[in-house]
Amino acid sequence: MKIIIVGATGTMGTHLASTLEKEHDLVRVASQGGDFQVDITSPKEIEKFFEAVGSFDALISTAGPTYVGPWSKLTDKEFRQGVEGKMMGQINLVLIGQKYINPKGSFTLITGALTEEPQINFANASAANGAVEGFVRAAAIELQNGIRINAVSPTVIENSPQYFPYFPGEIPTTMKQLEFMFRKSVFGAGTGHIIKS
Amino acid sequence: MKIIIVGATGTMGTHLASTLEKEHDLVRVASQGGDFQVDITSPKEIEKFFEAVGSFDALISTAGPTYVGPWSKLTDKEFRQGVEGKMMGQINLVLIGQKYINPKGSFTLITGALTEEPQINFANASAANGAVEGFVRAAAIELQNGIRINAVSPTVIENSPQYFPYFPGEIPTTMKQLEFMFRKSVFGAGTGHIIKS
Repeated sequence: MKIIIVGATGTMGTHLASTLEKEHDLVRVASQGGDFQVDITSPKEIEKFFEAVGSFDALISTAGPTYVGPWSKLTDKEFRQGVEGKMMGQINLVLIGQKYINPKGSFTLITGALTEEPQINFANASAANGAVEGFVRAAAIELQNGIRINAVSPTVIENSPQYFPYFPGEIPTTMKQLEFMFRKSVFGAGTGHIIKS
Repeated sequence: MKIIIVGATGTMGTHLASTLEKEHDLVRVASQGGDFQVDITSPKEIEKFFEAVGSFDALISTAGPTYVGPWSKLTDKEFRQGVEGKMMGQINLVLIGQKYINPKGSFTLITGALTEEPQINFANASAANGAVEGFVRAAAIELQNGIRINAVSPTVIENSPQYFPYFPGEIPTTMKQLEFMFRKSVFGAGTGHIIKS
């Protein structure tokens, strides 16, 4: 299976790539490094990337830039980080990528527990996640040719201990759990699902 | 109570204003008509509006422009209607309005059943709703001075029969139900809630 991993050099992407590369042909995408450097906040760059890579079977996104910081400093400007990055960046990967994906292919986007369980400093991520999850459910009834779409929604990630203090009482999602959540989306039959840890 | 109604000349806003004006001082806001004309896609216009209106006790928003139309024509450009309108328009009403609202005041935003129950042609609204609901839950734990925030999430509205064909099997929310959902948010004690019909 030809699988595109967007955010392939990040904590989640690196782990996923290391397990999936044994069985599949991977295309690693990142803002820096990887096989292709793509700024997902630019629909033009996304289109150019898909033109270059051609048809594929699955796209996994672990790319989710958002504003993390004090509410008192949160204005429209900071909010745009999540709007352009985690929200529209991922949504545009689907709106554009659907023209290149093979029949019965799948898109898997990243959200997170913050959608339903907010934490101080992360309002921008809660909104971006909510947008992506709403989009995933809607896209699932619109996509043609058996193409599926799901979101993977972990809690704080085992390999990102720097975030633990922001998620009191949250049991971290292990890298193994995370890997299997993505496997469920890519290799399972579900569509429009929010896969939680 | 001094209550701002944004979207005051629309189907929902007109009904709400007609019932609330008997008991409260209303400030009617709309893109056209009303007491103040405000383009909520402009943070500058929002700021100017709040400066003019001064302190208040509650803000109700029923303003939710989104792209409604075929998935095949849905690109980044169309998607921005919901991003700038129903999503960032309403979010900026809160981010800016929190500087002007009285202690123990409340914000009530509008979302809709499409967040969880998508319909063909409405992916943009599903995403915008999801963003607003994620934001509402997050803002509820950040807002200071006892200020509350909720979302009202109706199904298709009784007084908008032109939308019935797009919502097969959906029992319309009556205007009375809608009014009471907003009353629960404004006059109740809940915060971070998504109030459904």
